[in-house]
Amino acid sequence: MSNSLGKLFTITSFGESHGRVVGIVVDGCPAGLAITEEDIQRELDRRKPGEELVTTARKEADRAEVLSGVFEGRTTGAPICMVVWNRDVDSSDYQRTRYMVRPGHADYTAYIKYGGFNDFRGGGRFSGRITAGFVMAGAIAGKILEIIGVEVMAHTVAVGDIAARPTEVDQIRRKAGLNRLHCADSESAGEMMKAIERARQQGDSLGGIIEGIAIGLPAGLGEPTFDTLDGELARALFAIPAVKGVEFGSGFQAAKKRGSQNNDPFTIEDGGIVTTSNNAGGVLGGISSGMPLVVRVAVKPTASIASSQQTVDVKEMKGASLEVAGRHDACIVPRAVVVVESMMAITLCDLALRAGLLPRVIK
Amino acid sequence: MSNSLGKLFTITSFGESHGRVVGIVVDGCPAGLAITEEDIQRELDRRKPGEELVTTARKEADRAEVLSGVFEGRTTGAPICMVVWNRDVDSSDYQRTRYMVRPGHADYTAYIKYGGFNDFRGGGRFSGRITAGFVMAGAIAGKILEIIGVEVMAHTVAVGDIAARPTEVDQIRRKAGLNRLHCADSESAGEMMKAIERARQQGDSLGGIIEGIAIGLPAGLGEPTFDTLDGELARALFAIPAVKGVEFGSGFQAAKKRGSQNNDPFTIEDGGIVTTSNNAGGVLGGISSGMPLVVRVAVKPTASIASSQQTVDVKEMKGASLEVAGRHDACIVPRAVVVVESMMAITLCDLALRAGLLPRVIK
Amino acid sequence: MSNSLGKLFTITSFGESHGRVVGIVVDGCPAGLAITEEDIQRELDRRKPGEELVTTARKEADRAEVLSGVFEGRTTGAPICMVVWNRDVDSSDYQRTRYMVRPGHADYTAYIKYGGFNDFRGGGRFSGRITAGFVMAGAIAGKILEIIGVEVMAHTVAVGDIAARPTEVDQIRRKAGLNRLHCADSESAGEMMKAIERARQQGDSLGGIIEGIAIGLPAGLGEPTFDTLDGELARALFAIPAVKGVEFGSGFQAAKKRGSQNNDPFTIEDGGIVTTSNNAGGVLGGISSGMPLVVRVAVKPTASIASSQQTVDVKEMKGASLEVAGRHDACIVPRAVVVVESMMAITLCDLALRAGLLPRVIK
Amino acid sequence: MSNSLGKLFTITSFGESHGRVVGIVVDGCPAGLAITEEDIQRELDRRKPGEELVTTARKEADRAEVLSGVFEGRTTGAPICMVVWNRDVDSSDYQRTRYMVRPGHADYTAYIKYGGFNDFRGGGRFSGRITAGFVMAGAIAGKILEIIGVEVMAHTVAVGDIAARPTEVDQIRRKAGLNRLHCADSESAGEMMKAIERARQQGDSLGGIIEGIAIGLPAGLGEPTFDTLDGELARALFAIPAVKGVEFGSGFQAAKKRGSQNNDPFTIEDGGIVTTSNNAGGVLGGISSGMPLVVRVAVKPTASIASSQQTVDVKEMKGASLEVAGRHDACIVPRAVVVVESMMAITLCDLALRAGLLPRVIK
Repeated sequence: MSNSLGKLFTITSFGESHGRVVGIVVDGCPAGLAITEEDIQRELDRRKPGEELVTTARKEADRAEVLSGVFEGRTTGAPICMVVWNRDVDSSDYQRTRYMVRPGHADYTAYIKYGGFNDFRGGGRFSGRITAGFVMAGAIAGKILEIIGVEVMAHTVAVGDIAARPTEVDQIRRKAGLNRLHCADSESAGEMMKAIERARQQGDSLGGIIEGIAIGLPAGLGEPTFDTLDGELARALFAIPAVKGVEFGSGFQAAKKRGSQNNDPFTIEDGGIVTTSNNAGGVLGGISSGMPLVVRVAVKPTASIASSQQTVDVKEMKGASLEVAGRHDACIVPRAVVVVESMMAITLCDLALRAGLLPRVIK
Repeated sequence: MSNSLGKLFTITSFGESHGRVVGIVVDGCPAGLAITEEDIQRELDRRKPGEELVTTARKEADRAEVLSGVFEGRTTGAPICMVVWNRDVDSSDYQRTRYMVRPGHADYTAYIKYGGFNDFRGGGRFSGRITAGFVMAGAIAGKILEIIGVEVMAHTVAVGDIAARPTEVDQIRRKAGLNRLHCADSESAGEMMKAIERARQQGDSLGGIIEGIAIGLPAGLGEPTFDTLDGELARALFAIPAVKGVEFGSGFQAAKKRGSQNNDPFTIEDGGIVTTSNNAGGVLGGISSGMPLVVRVAVKPTASIASSQQTVDVKEMKGASLEVAGRHDACIVPRAVVVVESMMAITLCDLALRAGLLPRVIK
Repeated sequence: MSNSLGKLFTITSFGESHGRVVGIVVDGCPAGLAITEEDIQRELDRRKPGEELVTTARKEADRAEVLSGVFEGRTTGAPICMVVWNRDVDSSDYQRTRYMVRPGHADYTAYIKYGGFNDFRGGGRFSGRITAGFVMAGAIAGKILEIIGVEVMAHTVAVGDIAARPTEVDQIRRKAGLNRLHCADSESAGEMMKAIERARQQGDSLGGIIEGIAIGLPAGLGEPTFDTLDGELARALFAIPAVKGVEFGSGFQAAKKRGSQNNDPFTIEDGGIVTTSNNAGGVLGGISSGMPLVVRVAVKPTASIASSQQTVDVKEMKGASLEVAGRHDACIVPRAVVVVESMMAITLCDLALRAGLLPRVIK
Repeated sequence: MSNSLGKLFTITSFGESHGRVVGIVVDGCPAGLAITEEDIQRELDRRKPGEELVTTARKEADRAEVLSGVFEGRTTGAPICMVVWNRDVDSSDYQRTRYMVRPGHADYTAYIKYGGFNDFRGGGRFSGRITAGFVMAGAIAGKILEIIGVEVMAHTVAVGDIAARPTEVDQIRRKAGLNRLHCADSESAGEMMKAIERARQQGDSLGGIIEGIAIGLPAGLGEPTFDTLDGELARALFAIPAVKGVEFGSGFQAAKKRGSQNNDPFTIEDGGIVTTSNNAGGVLGGISSGMPLVVRVAVKPTASIASSQQTVDVKEMKGASLEVAGRHDACIVPRAVVVVESMMAITLCDLALRAGLLPRVIK
């Protein structure tokens, strides 16, 4: 296990889905940052299931609690431990199917890696629930980035085979928060909603694509050769359960383009250097270019589905048929949007500190 | 700058395109591994430009030299420093266009980040040439992985809009090495070759997609939550210049599938647990499942093109028109194949050590 | 701030003296280790103040709580978060003298580093109280080391100018726990007690020396050149507030010896290789030799003293006279003994994992 | 093996005593630093054996070569690889006594750890010769520290039982370089020289104590809880072969003092806050206080002595008698002085970067 991320701005994740708590320790936060539990709660609430249609039945009235590192309303420079307590937990279903590893989940790999000692209830450490910690840390990271004028936003660009129409940053900022899908194209959002409901009724699930954008990022973030802006972001984003692909700018489409199409010409605008297109997605040579950072994340369909699936009982070592009970979303894309933002903010914060672009004390 | 990668098996990269040397230090290699300069040279040679058609004019008669860490034909447990010396270097073109940042390259971002002190000649630290160090390290990593029966291979699956037909592992192993494209589908390879030649003649370039596969990987590699198998591989692969996307298994296609299609059912085969499909690409919850690891990497078209491009002279702060001289491949995909293999082997080696699956001394 | 220690077995410390909590996250613990809150409490209790004579008035009825990482009585491989809640806290004295930096404490350096935003109450992050977290982590590390037959013990060898007579390991094991001084020489312990009481009555304080020993350590721990056994231990031990020196084996006395006296001759005993003396303290070239590991730690006299001291009010920037109120021990050496053991166990655990000497799953 | 040190300013050491090369890679150096091979050579020369009396017979005409990271006389931000080539090497003696582990050396522990595959010639990786790399890196670190007005110096304070009389910083600066002992007290230096010569004639060796001092260090360096100023320095200093103890300020003497004696009173001087004594050695709570940093390092007597010693042949597993041939100093203290300075400069550089006290680009 390796549950810490970041070099100067470091998060350490702990907790399980059905244990006592899910939490995070944020280390390396500059001192003097004004932050309240409400600031953190606000982001945490964005991770909540939208409505019964889209999501699980679990009543997650998660309350962010700050246990350390904040004093008189400001960060102290000390590590910030934050938790949400687990309540309303029913593990009985998981006990019953303990050794029947769920397809598409980490049950089997965790069983092998931890010799069967892992807490399997609700997926344990591998549950999407641990991203509550990511979001609490992301709330702090986002506050820090504001200081240097960086804004991070994410939105749903596809659910199943429904793709949202391309939108401008301004529209994303204004509209993505208006619907449960966090989709800036409200018409597509409506179709996505229906598709999810359809899948749910069929005991099935859908995946999708989330796009993350960072605006106002100065040029110079990223520490090549190995701690590149894109590499560090990719690593952080693959920590989100269900993510299967990450691409920047034109991404996989770049493979089909010619150099003359894909290269972004430089020009001078308002006294600064910009590119007239952004196929690079704001990153060149692993370093931010000052153009908007654009990353897209492929989210696989929820592994938990109500339909019967073929699997193996790892204890008895024989085939089994499994219907996954318990809570699950028919599509986790909408809830993962804020998680993508959080992982981006956390990573950018670390790289901004490393590039010397953030103060150690905020006055 | 952060030029080290890996926690127990660590590589540290150094050198520049037009400096004295390109090199790598491999630290954490188990003692007792039989290795020769020829073993390393063999991999390095696979990175060589195929023929004039596909590649640059540089006569890279690179010879791998081992400066430390190997004694009496075996690794000693000490850090292994390896270099190739730069020869046949002509930097005059770069001097002339020093301040005209090349579109699609790291010239601009490096200029900003390093205050103009970076060695710009041939792209300096950002040249594809530094991957010679990756390949030397990969040669050692590959030798180590052999001990536990892991085989890593990569092949070209697309160049521009030409996609190779799907192939079995066995065919990849036998056929990918037979053509300069490292493409297991020889028919497609021929078309790819023509497309590259066409692009070259037009002063343009092409990108493509490389697929990496690891066979024989035991279940249990990967250290969630943050040092996952997929996350660590992604970070390593994004260190290869020109990579813009990384996906595992069904990857971005997973976003369009339903859970019932995308989940891989478990079954028992020859006394072991396998899945009947491999949409996961061999990784579940950030941990290897024992199924083949499958990763695909999007490579953008070579940024260096002969056609005239619009750019900026960063010193004069005015627009400029640039024709990139110097050496460059019209498509670097074929040469990047062995680099993908190398980064995979390096990452898997580190994770195998971390998972306790490799000995510290090889007898 | 950097509050994580260890590469494979990693602890992350959080909490403040007068905040809500003091805690620790242990990451990288092998799965399957049987551990209970009682096991942890037992070690934590050894850190308690002995009696009113020696210690502060604070009623630290600290209860160790395990929040994550343990399931069905065994570690799961997931991060283990443990806390003790702060109770019986009175911060009024600290508020009054907030800007009068206490000599010998971190008040001034923390004020500068964190721009005055640090939680100053009771020393905040710099309080000896945060070592409660170290001890909880040490309890787990000690349990792991038992598996490979390693025993870690520490004892008081000097308080002020009273030095205990040299003792054999066996005597330390049997007798150090019998008195509040954790001194294996009971006669000296009595004198130490009196000296501490005398200092306390005079409004003064005493320091001392603690010796840590690890028995049963196999040869091979330590990762030169930089993560040596001695270097890693030293770093961990300097994290204990008030430690001013660390030496191994003959330590500073080695400087006065001749090579012919200080070298430990090798010989064969019971089929194994040992040395006939142990001036090396069990470490050669940064690697354990299989002989007992012997480290001595200098602890300065408690900085908090009742006598009036000259200082500065950093807000008013003028001289001030300060009598430190609040709780404090006249000598913290006895309470630091278990902390030394803990830091040793934590460090040895990490190095044993790195050397491949511990399993990832304990069956 | 773990051959990298530092988080933002990172050195990676490689090479062996009788291999092809000894080298270092410096990563994270700010761009724009003016540096020449002569600057590095100057420091390297200070590590040279003084004269036949004190030192080995090896003709170390070591020439520092910079292989990367410097361009047009300035650092580029890229990793700086530096080497000295090994010449005048005669390994025949070592071949003869290959399996007779030398007392006081790492021969035995390395044999065990690396399964006998380690390069034993001249101690291989464990030779004092690898500190040539430390010194080359230290030369760069020292240049960086000059920018923020930090001066690092070290001097010999004891050889065997001869202790130099206490000296002021000014005297150390002026006089320590004047004699081969690097001792600021020239009278004591003469006696030390005689004592070393006496030991040499008797086929024996001496140890000693080196004191390192950093002047001009701003308050705020050090990243508690675990990457403290003292802890990080200790770890770096224990990487120097033969170091057995490290103490700060009053160090082990603090253990004998009372709080009222050992606490350093704060006062205001020239508008700044200082302490009227410096028992803390410039570090409080793991953070620099702005007072001179004072660290003392115990160096054991050279393990290589001409006299016959009892040992074991690890291959034959039987007792043996050994006279260590080959080159060796009767006292390595004088040559270690510059190495202590180097490790201090390297560590302070890293901590200054981490504290945000150094620019990323030097204009």
